[in-house]
Amino acid sequence: MSVALRDLDSVQPLDISDRPVLSPAYRLVLRLEIANRPGMFAKVATMIGDRGCSLGAIDLVEATTATHVRDVTIDVQSEEAGEKLAAALRTIDGIKVRAVSDRTFLVHLGGKIEVKGRTQVRNRDDLSLVYTPGVARVCRAIAQNKDLAWTFTMRGNTVAVVSDGTAVLGLGNIGPEGALPVMEGKSMLFSQLAGINAFPLCLAAKDPQEIIDTVVSVAPNFGGINLEDIAAPACFDIERELRRRLDIPVFHDDQHGTAIVVNAALRNAAAVCDIALDKLRVVIVGAGAAGIATARLLHRSGVTHLRLCDRHGIVHLGRTDLNSEKRAVVQELDPQAPAGSISDAVKDAHVFIGLSGPKLLTLEALRTMARPRIVFAMANPEPEIDPALAAPEVDVLGTGRSDYPNQVNNVLAFPGFFRGLLDAHARSVTTEMELAAANALAATVPAKLRSTDYILPSVFDPQVVPAMARAVAAAARAAGVARKVPRARGAHSPSA
Amino acid sequence: MSVALRDLDSVQPLDISDRPVLSPAYRLVLRLEIANRPGMFAKVATMIGDRGCSLGAIDLVEATTATHVRDVTIDVQSEEAGEKLAAALRTIDGIKVRAVSDRTFLVHLGGKIEVKGRTQVRNRDDLSLVYTPGVARVCRAIAQNKDLAWTFTMRGNTVAVVSDGTAVLGLGNIGPEGALPVMEGKSMLFSQLAGINAFPLCLAAKDPQEIIDTVVSVAPNFGGINLEDIAAPACFDIERELRRRLDIPVFHDDQHGTAIVVNAALRNAAAVCDIALDKLRVVIVGAGAAGIATARLLHRSGVTHLRLCDRHGIVHLGRTDLNSEKRAVVQELDPQAPAGSISDAVKDAHVFIGLSGPKLLTLEALRTMARPRIVFAMANPEPEIDPALAAPEVDVLGTGRSDYPNQVNNVLAFPGFFRGLLDAHARSVTTEMELAAANALAATVPAKLRSTDYILPSVFDPQVVPAMARAVAAAARAAGVARKVPRARGAHSPSA
Repeated sequence: MSVALRDLDSVQPLDISDRPVLSPAYRLVLRLEIANRPGMFAKVATMIGDRGCSLGAIDLVEATTATHVRDVTIDVQSEEAGEKLAAALRTIDGIKVRAVSDRTFLVHLGGKIEVKGRTQVRNRDDLSLVYTPGVARVCRAIAQNKDLAWTFTMRGNTVAVVSDGTAVLGLGNIGPEGALPVMEGKSMLFSQLAGINAFPLCLAAKDPQEIIDTVVSVAPNFGGINLEDIAAPACFDIERELRRRLDIPVFHDDQHGTAIVVNAALRNAAAVCDIALDKLRVVIVGAGAAGIATARLLHRSGVTHLRLCDRHGIVHLGRTDLNSEKRAVVQELDPQAPAGSISDAVKDAHVFIGLSGPKLLTLEALRTMARPRIVFAMANPEPEIDPALAAPEVDVLGTGRSDYPNQVNNVLAFPGFFRGLLDAHARSVTTEMELAAANALAATVPAKLRSTDYILPSVFDPQVVPAMARAVAAAARAAGVARKVPRARGAHSPSA
Repeated sequence: MSVALRDLDSVQPLDISDRPVLSPAYRLVLRLEIANRPGMFAKVATMIGDRGCSLGAIDLVEATTATHVRDVTIDVQSEEAGEKLAAALRTIDGIKVRAVSDRTFLVHLGGKIEVKGRTQVRNRDDLSLVYTPGVARVCRAIAQNKDLAWTFTMRGNTVAVVSDGTAVLGLGNIGPEGALPVMEGKSMLFSQLAGINAFPLCLAAKDPQEIIDTVVSVAPNFGGINLEDIAAPACFDIERELRRRLDIPVFHDDQHGTAIVVNAALRNAAAVCDIALDKLRVVIVGAGAAGIATARLLHRSGVTHLRLCDRHGIVHLGRTDLNSEKRAVVQELDPQAPAGSISDAVKDAHVFIGLSGPKLLTLEALRTMARPRIVFAMANPEPEIDPALAAPEVDVLGTGRSDYPNQVNNVLAFPGFFRGLLDAHARSVTTEMELAAANALAATVPAKLRSTDYILPSVFDPQVVPAMARAVAAAARAAGVARKVPRARGAHSPSA
């Protein structure tokens, strides 16, 4: 099974994003038929190296006296570089390139998630239990008491991952079909990391009202709703209205997931720098979904000096170009904010939190910041400032990238947060749950080990989900929004 | 893990249905602590037998010198009988009933299906392929060419099982939560029998328009829509409008699934009786979703003498109480139909097809039918006529029940039908596909083996799904509605 790149000829970079994508995504598998003569593979390896590509695994597929067929895994800089390498290999006498496959597309073939029965239906007797006629008794029980659906259906362990595809990664409005691979990836992580059934619902919706109506309509199947990659400011209204209409938790991950992880990261960074949160002067650049939610949650954690910027500079009440969300948050948190540029805001601040776009923080501006100096440059894939430039100038550096320490990644939040919501069969989300989650996440880094390069755990740290889940479920009970007091459980039940 | 019946105290029979449910559904597991004295288990067995209950598997859980703890599986007639048996066992000196569990509820605990990743995310490198940043390339490819979603997401192998819970089994309008166990059961069968991802969407929708709007909105995630247990006549409008608005197949299983299976059953029954379809006088009792679709498909198969009845008698154009669907179908198939009762219709007919309610066919009426005499009494759980009474009077008998030969069950149709639709990435459903499916299903019973007791295969017959899938996919290609000409495949890839 292979996807030749030529099958994807129609795939050209969209003009909405021609940013470079990090190298791990460009990993090709070349199936090469190599004449069985001394030194032939060395020629291949040399050509790969000469072109700045990196040779990975080599598998023998078949061998005859005349030829060896090998699958060769190669990291390249771009699709184009891969095509050029294949073309170059074809010029070597004794080498045939049978197929060029692309690991990223290969792993997506047929989709990344599947739905299966939890038990096997082996015979008519089994069938009569899980389907008619036996199932009728369970249906009647639930019809009489809807709360039983939490026990006798998948509802209590199932989340919808809802997007309209209007703000997907850095790609912008690419529509529901284009968003589906992200939502599948997210669903995969829900399952593997937290044992949650998550199902993508990418909506062909014309407006926020259609999204709201659709989610309300499908809600009986789910124990929670994860909103994802919906553009601001529509995302605020959608979440607000869904929270009003539904008795299950609704959580826009771009807002609150980000807020929780940044919150945990800043707590630990402040601890490393031995400074209290209320002493920090914090600038957030990016006043979309993530920036606004992050500002509010930091405020609730005791950060008192908060300044919000967007690409036009400081968000202040004198501006006439603010949407109602920006106006509301600055009224709430920083009503005296002055006019000014991002550089003005950054001067003498301790903390820069970037949730915006590439290159919005200059090295000059960075150098005007106070000490301790904490920079989270999380624009992805290209951060607000080149981490290599920033690193020598700051006390703690975080990015959204996996190739630097302190990766600030929502994957640290949503699995554990929803595990806790579902364990409690929570009716809603509260800010206290988010604070509890941030606390629990921060605490997974032991105080002894905390350092400038270790303020957040790995996304594969098995402590993260159970710790957050316990904290969130406890907060749900404390808030009186838990349908269920969870039974003692050692941990979640991941599929891992 | 056990569900004591006392936990279900709130579960009383609904007044919308107090019909008896077949015995396989009432299977209890009693955990008994039995004094380790000679003859003690015999007392248990005797009491079970004396009460008309049936003793099944006996598992030893723990044994000490003083007692044996055993899990005893028992078939009982009703929940009440189970409670009484447990109470009676408690009166035996030396017996303690530790728990009474109900297998039907046990198998539903936590739901019957799960969503999982198709691969394991083991490290950051994997994460960068299935999630950010690698996934962005797949998103962009799909955003440019939406058809790629059929290849690189789950869409091409995924079906929504949509219900509003208005006509669930024989239970009536029990709401979306109550319908969920049925849709989960169906999803389980889609997966196990046909390797299809099926996801239940039980909708909290106030009217048909909301169902339509919701399904249109979620459609980008699915390769097909299976409508289920939606009351007539709304189901007709919903299906029609969805077919108009969507470019994926929409299939109301209560209509077309039933029509396909009945069609196959009648073809084989006619072959067993050595009579041509166009010679048969056929009466269909039940003019809801299933009856009307069955009538139309039989007509397309060459049945020319077709008469439709509802509980008020023959459906004819002189009646003023017909909804527009009944009027349309009788105008189409039998415009000259006279007034009359069900008994009038049945007289001199060869075939009775019951898709209605209990006891609508009397033995007297049955005896007025012509020969060969074919009766499909499919009302479930209580057929139109007691099979034990009907059997001696007819040439071929079919029911919806698993405890008689010739079970006419939709499970024979939907997995293979959708497998074919998805293999072709079909844009729509045609009547030709349904005819092809019925033909293929009928042909899975070899002519040599066909008999009065063998007109349909077992739902576990592994030939059924591939045979129907091939037929349906071929019909989709022939009709020009296939996005994809399927590659040669030996069979589907079931999880079984």
